[in-house]
Amino acid sequence: MTEQGLIVLMTDFGLRDGYGAILKGVIAGINPHVQVIDLTHDIPPQDLWAGSFCLMNAYPYFPLGTVYIAVVDPGVGTQRRGVAVKFREGYLVGPDNGLLSGILSLSPPLDAVNLTNTSYWRTITPSATFQGRDIFAPVGAHLANGVPLALLGDAIETSSLTTLPMAFCQVNGTEVNGMIQYIDGFGNLISNIPALVIAQGVKSVVLKDKKIIFAQTYSDVTKGEAVALIGSHGMLEIAISGGNAQETLSVGLGTPLFVKME
Amino acid sequence: MTEQGLIVLMTDFGLRDGYGAILKGVIAGINPHVQVIDLTHDIPPQDLWAGSFCLMNAYPYFPLGTVYIAVVDPGVGTQRRGVAVKFREGYLVGPDNGLLSGILSLSPPLDAVNLTNTSYWRTITPSATFQGRDIFAPVGAHLANGVPLALLGDAIETSSLTTLPMAFCQVNGTEVNGMIQYIDGFGNLISNIPALVIAQGVKSVVLKDKKIIFAQTYSDVTKGEAVALIGSHGMLEIAISGGNAQETLSVGLGTPLFVKME
Amino acid sequence: MTEQGLIVLMTDFGLRDGYGAILKGVIAGINPHVQVIDLTHDIPPQDLWAGSFCLMNAYPYFPLGTVYIAVVDPGVGTQRRGVAVKFREGYLVGPDNGLLSGILSLSPPLDAVNLTNTSYWRTITPSATFQGRDIFAPVGAHLANGVPLALLGDAIETSSLTTLPMAFCQVNGTEVNGMIQYIDGFGNLISNIPALVIAQGVKSVVLKDKKIIFAQTYSDVTKGEAVALIGSHGMLEIAISGGNAQETLSVGLGTPLFVKME
Repeated sequence: MTEQGLIVLMTDFGLRDGYGAILKGVIAGINPHVQVIDLTHDIPPQDLWAGSFCLMNAYPYFPLGTVYIAVVDPGVGTQRRGVAVKFREGYLVGPDNGLLSGILSLSPPLDAVNLTNTSYWRTITPSATFQGRDIFAPVGAHLANGVPLALLGDAIETSSLTTLPMAFCQVNGTEVNGMIQYIDGFGNLISNIPALVIAQGVKSVVLKDKKIIFAQTYSDVTKGEAVALIGSHGMLEIAISGGNAQETLSVGLGTPLFVKME
Repeated sequence: MTEQGLIVLMTDFGLRDGYGAILKGVIAGINPHVQVIDLTHDIPPQDLWAGSFCLMNAYPYFPLGTVYIAVVDPGVGTQRRGVAVKFREGYLVGPDNGLLSGILSLSPPLDAVNLTNTSYWRTITPSATFQGRDIFAPVGAHLANGVPLALLGDAIETSSLTTLPMAFCQVNGTEVNGMIQYIDGFGNLISNIPALVIAQGVKSVVLKDKKIIFAQTYSDVTKGEAVALIGSHGMLEIAISGGNAQETLSVGLGTPLFVKME
Repeated sequence: MTEQGLIVLMTDFGLRDGYGAILKGVIAGINPHVQVIDLTHDIPPQDLWAGSFCLMNAYPYFPLGTVYIAVVDPGVGTQRRGVAVKFREGYLVGPDNGLLSGILSLSPPLDAVNLTNTSYWRTITPSATFQGRDIFAPVGAHLANGVPLALLGDAIETSSLTTLPMAFCQVNGTEVNGMIQYIDGFGNLISNIPALVIAQGVKSVVLKDKKIIFAQTYSDVTKGEAVALIGSHGMLEIAISGGNAQETLSVGLGTPLFVKME
C-alpha cells in the first residue's frame, strides 16, 4: 500500500453529473492525503454482473491494502445491507447485493461488518438515493485512514454475504462448454474459460456455429478476421483483428462458446 | 482544506481531446502538490445552466477552502470579464457569464476581482479560444498556492457579477408550481422544488398531467413505475424505478411539475 | 518536474472497462508518490494519427521531466519494439509504431532504448494483448522513480524510431495549401497550417470551395456562421460560432484548406 493509502472507486454513476467527484470531495474532507483512483464510473446502470466482473478483473493490479469502494446499487434506500469486507489484498466497501462477489470468489472474505455505526457516515440521515456519498465514501475514507474494520459496524458471518451465481465453464474430458461473460469497450468478447483449463492445447474453438482461429495475438490473423486468444484477463477471448467482434459477429452476453482440446 | 490545497475543475471540454488534462499540466507546473479533482468535463457544450447547476449541487461536499475552476465559456475572446470570487466555502475562478451564479445564489460572494493582472496568467498573450489554459488554470493554481485574491486583478463590486435568472418554484398556499431544471445521466428529472418547501407533507405530484407516486426511494414502487422522491440534490425528483425517466416519460428541461400539499 | 515526478497517460482504452485505471494501479505499486494525469483514454481505437497529434499538442503545457506513457498499439504482441525515448522536455514510453513521432518532430529524440530489460516489466511473461499493463506502465513508473533510461534496455539509434509521414502544408508565394489534420470533440476542424506561416496577414480562407471569414475569435461572427481563426493549438482552425463545424460543414480528416495571404 502507498504510505498515505489508496482508494479505488467503481460506480455506475457516469462522468457527466459529477456524482463520482462528489465521492472524492467527501473522501478529501476526511482523508486529504489518500490517493484516489477511478477504476470506472461507466458500469452499465445497475448491472451487478458487469461491476462484479470489472472489480474481479482489476484488483490483482493494485497495491496490497487498497480500499475498494464499489457502488452499483439498485436497492439503495431499501433494507439491503451496506458492508465492509476484509480480504487478503485489501478492503471492499459497498452494498451487499452481489457486486463484491466476483472478487470474493477468487480471494475469500476474511472478515465482514454490517455498516451500522453512523459515527463514520457523513450524516446520520443519509439520502435514500445516494448512499455512496453519505455512507460508502466516508466509511472507505476512514478505513484508508486506519480505522479498524470492527469499529464500522456489527460483525457478520462472511458466509452471509450475498453472492451472484457464478457461471463457471463445464469441462467434459477434452471438451469445454463456456459462454461470453463480458464484452469490453473494444467489442472484445471475454469468455468464462480460464487459460489454465485449456492449457493442454486447443484443437478448435466454436462460437455460434462459427469456427474461430486460435492464435497468440490479434495480428496473427488477417485484419478483419476473427481470432480466439488468451486475453489480458487470463480468459479465452474472441476478437476481430483491427475491428469490433461484438458488432461484426452480432454476439451478446451469454452466447455459448465451445472448445475442443487435444 | 487539504494541507496542500484542493482544486476542482468543471468544464464542457469533454474528455477526448485532452484539453482538461492540459489545465492540469499548467496547474502542476505552478503548484505541484495541489490535489486536482475533475468535477466533470461533460457539461453539454456552452450550457451555462447545466454548469451552474452542477457546481451548485457539488460544492457542499468539498472541503472548505477549495478552489473551483469553471470553464463553460461561449464568449471566450470577447470583452466578457474573467473573475475570481471569494465565498464562504472557497474560491471560484472562471468567466463572468452567469456560470458561477448558481453557487453564489446559495452562498453569496464576499469579494471579487476582474482578472487583469497578467503576472498570474500563463502568458501575456492568451489564446482567444482557450483562456481556461492561459488564464483560469494558472490563476486558480496561484490562488491554491496562497496568492491573495486582491493581487489577481482589480476589485469589482460583487453585485456587478453576472447572474443567470433563477427559476424558483412558486408556492400558493398548499400548491407548488415548479419545473424540471436538470436531467442527469440516469435520466432522473430533478425539479426546482426543494425538500424544505414540501416538508409539511405531499398529497399529490403531477408531471405533464400524469400523477406520480410520492415515496421515499426508487424501490418503493414496482420496477418500471414512475416515482417522485426527495433526491440526493435535496430537490423533488422524478425517476423510473430501475429505468430512465427522461426516455420513458419523454420529458425535457422546463417541463412543469405541480405539487399539492397537505 | 514536480518533486515526486509526474506521469501522463494517453491510450485508446476508453474509460468503461478500467484498463487505464489498471495502469495506475501498476504504477502506484512501483511509485506510490508519483502524480498521474490522464491526458485522454479516448483516442479513437488504433488511430495512431490522432494519438500522435494529441500528444504533440499537449506536451508544451506539462512540467519539464514529465514521463509520457502512450499506448495506441495495433501491433501489440508482434515483433514491433517497445521503446523509451528521452527528449528535451521529458520521456516517452510506448510502442515504436509512429505514435510518438508527432512530438518528436517538434522536439527531437536525444536518446532511445528498446525495452528489452525484463527486470523493469511487471512480469517476464507479458500478455500478448495488454503490454501497457505489463511493460509500458511499469517501465514509465521506474523512469519517474529515477531509473536511468540506459538500464531499461538496449540503446538504439534515434534515427531508427518509426515515424508517421507528416503532412506539412505547402507554401507557394502568397498561397498556402493545407488540410484538416484533426477534428476535436467540439467539431472544430484543426488544419496543418501553423500561425507562423500566415502571420503576414490572411486575405482569404477557402474550405471545400466555401469562403470562410477569418477572425480573431468565435464570437467575431454571427452565431451559426463559420469562422477561420488561429486556434489554441497554434494552427489555423475552422469553427462554427456556437456550433459544430464537422457536422454543419460535413467535413472529414484530410479535407483541403486553401489560404491566400497578403
